[in-house]
Amino acid sequence: MEIALLGGTGDIGEGLALRWAHDTDHTVLIGFRKPEKAVSKADAYQTQLAERGIGQTVTGYGNEEAANRADVIVVSVPPLYVADTIKTVSPALDEDNVLVSPAVQMSRDAAGFHYNPPEEGTVAEVIAAAAPEGVPVVGAFQNIAAGALSNLDNELAADIVVTGDDDEAKTLVQSLAEDIEGLRALDGGPLANTGIVESITPLLINLAMNNEGMHNLGVRFQ
Amino acid sequence: MEIALLGGTGDIGEGLALRWAHDTDHTVLIGFRKPEKAVSKADAYQTQLAERGIGQTVTGYGNEEAANRADVIVVSVPPLYVADTIKTVSPALDEDNVLVSPAVQMSRDAAGFHYNPPEEGTVAEVIAAAAPEGVPVVGAFQNIAAGALSNLDNELAADIVVTGDDDEAKTLVQSLAEDIEGLRALDGGPLANTGIVESITPLLINLAMNNEGMHNLGVRFQ
Repeated sequence: MEIALLGGTGDIGEGLALRWAHDTDHTVLIGFRKPEKAVSKADAYQTQLAERGIGQTVTGYGNEEAANRADVIVVSVPPLYVADTIKTVSPALDEDNVLVSPAVQMSRDAAGFHYNPPEEGTVAEVIAAAAPEGVPVVGAFQNIAAGALSNLDNELAADIVVTGDDDEAKTLVQSLAEDIEGLRALDGGPLANTGIVESITPLLINLAMNNEGMHNLGVRFQ
Repeated sequence: MEIALLGGTGDIGEGLALRWAHDTDHTVLIGFRKPEKAVSKADAYQTQLAERGIGQTVTGYGNEEAANRADVIVVSVPPLYVADTIKTVSPALDEDNVLVSPAVQMSRDAAGFHYNPPEEGTVAEVIAAAAPEGVPVVGAFQNIAAGALSNLDNELAADIVVTGDDDEAKTLVQSLAEDIEGLRALDGGPLANTGIVESITPLLINLAMNNEGMHNLGVRFQ
């Protein structure tokens, strides 16, 4: 499977790139607005993996080229850039692709972080509205901390709630999530359910801020 | 500590009553609109506990009498009855009491359960608006399944997120939650953060509906 991480030069995109390259044989493609930054980050990931004896090739491209080469495209860019990014890569998309939405729009005040969803309802629905018709969108990976993923010494034990209206796409993303050691993927129902999943992310940050010894929190349902 | 469970004749109120009576020396008071139902349920709980060798007394009262006798009052009634219940018990409340809000307002359609918060923002804020000024309100126990609590054979391993604006009240409720074996209480910040906690409840129900072998789900942050 060819997986593109748009905005894969940092944050959750970096963590997913490293984990998929480390734990699986999937081809990992880093996308960024500026191709040269994607290339240099991909090189850095490859070096980091080689130091652990992992020979996987990670390559960098501009966002559109990364999307063009990929089956599954994770839109790991900040929420405000999501719609523009999808417009840029739209010529590369068709019904055989799957778009994955891991981002969450939040605000912050003295009380902590708050869920501050876009007008469309959720970031996942921003992607669905901006993408060409028929390209399936799946919500996933909102509740896993970037730091927990990108530190490969950290043993994961977290749940990923996967939402979407296309069952085949959802099953594929569930399976890709479970290819990462320590992640369990749960079916969260249709894309309309994504808001609750997105809203857990600010809670995780607040809990880490308010409770001693907690950081890089994820969630388990049991 | 004297703990009243308003609406303690079923659901989460029943579970909390049984657990506190089973695991602690706190005095457990069952409140219900009709005192005779509270009395008969309290007797049934006491019998169930006696069968396990627990000699704790559980007593039943009308809601106002239960509130009057209690330090901490858990408003475990359905969301639509919360405001009326608080009005009924208001004469019994003062600043030394703590009101606890475990309920969540939800709707249901073909896609599953949805968070359907009241106009006031959250059930916790409905309670705060209806209670006499100065009576602290704490959100807690929204994300624990009634069935998981009330089956005393079930070993708990769940987190309770506690929110509130009165630090002393919040610390007290955290401590009462942790008096129940297997529960860990986390500080979720001010009462304004309660919405995210409430919204997790429909997700837990949806996950149980959509994923084989999952039921009575709770949540762990790790």
